[in-house]
Amino acid sequence: MESRIKLTVAYLGDGFCGWQRQAGKPTVQDEIARALARMTGVPTGVVGAGRTDAGVHAAAQAAHADLPARIEAAAVVSALNASLDPRIRVRSAVAVPETFHARHDARAKLYRYRISWRPPRLPWHGLRTATVAAPIDPAAVRRALESVTGTNDMASFSVPQPGSTVRTLHRAWLEDRRAGAVFSFVGDGFLRYQVRRLVGALLEVGFGRLSTAGFEELVDRPRPGSPIRTAPARGLTLERVFYRRSPLLDPRGRAANETEAM
Amino acid sequence: MESRIKLTVAYLGDGFCGWQRQAGKPTVQDEIARALARMTGVPTGVVGAGRTDAGVHAAAQAAHADLPARIEAAAVVSALNASLDPRIRVRSAVAVPETFHARHDARAKLYRYRISWRPPRLPWHGLRTATVAAPIDPAAVRRALESVTGTNDMASFSVPQPGSTVRTLHRAWLEDRRAGAVFSFVGDGFLRYQVRRLVGALLEVGFGRLSTAGFEELVDRPRPGSPIRTAPARGLTLERVFYRRSPLLDPRGRAANETEAM
Repeated sequence: MESRIKLTVAYLGDGFCGWQRQAGKPTVQDEIARALARMTGVPTGVVGAGRTDAGVHAAAQAAHADLPARIEAAAVVSALNASLDPRIRVRSAVAVPETFHARHDARAKLYRYRISWRPPRLPWHGLRTATVAAPIDPAAVRRALESVTGTNDMASFSVPQPGSTVRTLHRAWLEDRRAGAVFSFVGDGFLRYQVRRLVGALLEVGFGRLSTAGFEELVDRPRPGSPIRTAPARGLTLERVFYRRSPLLDPRGRAANETEAM
Repeated sequence: MESRIKLTVAYLGDGFCGWQRQAGKPTVQDEIARALARMTGVPTGVVGAGRTDAGVHAAAQAAHADLPARIEAAAVVSALNASLDPRIRVRSAVAVPETFHARHDARAKLYRYRISWRPPRLPWHGLRTATVAAPIDPAAVRRALESVTGTNDMASFSVPQPGSTVRTLHRAWLEDRRAGAVFSFVGDGFLRYQVRRLVGALLEVGFGRLSTAGFEELVDRPRPGSPIRTAPARGLTLERVFYRRSPLLDPRGRAANETEAM
């Protein structure tokens, strides 16, 4: 008898080749599968809500796994954390119906991209923040963010790939920070490199090197492989995977709801 | 013509095999030497104030290097940080007389060891803190710290080695933190593993598993290779290297001076 659990996992992307298993490379999925196998004594797979690329962080990646029924979900967190690399922490483990699927059931994801124009003075500061050369113009970036919200063909912001490149960005907003800023994106799904290439283009807007019209053209005339810079993985964190309705998934929701996502 | 500079360097120990160069292994000294060579265009050595072991961190390791005189000390920090691994940050670079020697001239060092009995929930918290199983009795630890302050044969707290094992611990103190504590040690020099083995024994005292008398015996009857646990590298940071007189080097100094070391 097996029972399914949903895991919520945080990780520092440094030193991992992303979430998804790759033969011979250190990945988060592999580390968790191995920790599960050590705990259960049998090979145990784990399915994530989606991939994250090499170097990208997660505050709350979601995943599911099937464990022998004798193992209590409550005991899983401490057992896994005791044997996992400290750069990976399991934050919670809850019993879910066997029909729950971490990827298929995910309604949306929240990604945040943190930038600072003041380089960190100490190596343990700003581990999830990308350093940029200069301050950005927040008003110009906010205009561009408005134009990209909604359902659009996001091909300009990804790499050539099979399948539809249409995605819905439910909400996108910018928050000012001391000597920096945070971009937030809530969407039903994201293409490979989409957030980092979107941020790459938005930074050009923020630096005054790309006009709002030029940015809108990237949205309105989707061109796979357009010459956009991909912002560094270091600044990107998968903050949350949504499995239920949330005000954040409603484009008319109030800005106050955005703090809920923290 | 060359001119000597003194570098102050911070690093996260994770992923490095310590400070000291070792063929074929990633070390902080090697990374800095390579960044200096990229900047100067010629092979450039760097001499540190002392070794730190694999996984041990530094907030302010000191080092010296000889650069072509045309290179301004002021330009060194940004040039090195631009090419260094982000886990290493050069905090300052100042011109010093050519007689300055980072190791020979060091009068003392401050090491801190951070513990917490609440495991970090997120992987970017507590990167320089070791998790311990239970709270410690601070009064018992403080009594033991008093007995080890001064000039003693520290053989019990190191591994068998050639040369004198007598060292002076100018000051040692314990600060309470929320769900944790910080040990500080100011000494003229430290044997290999000395701080981590000292902390290993002090934790036994704090947990009530080793009596103050038992701890004092380790000090009074030095036994190389005594069966003491070595506390994990993760909790240890080299915080400061002293080249001048400081109230911290005076055992009769007031406790208020201890905040200066932060």
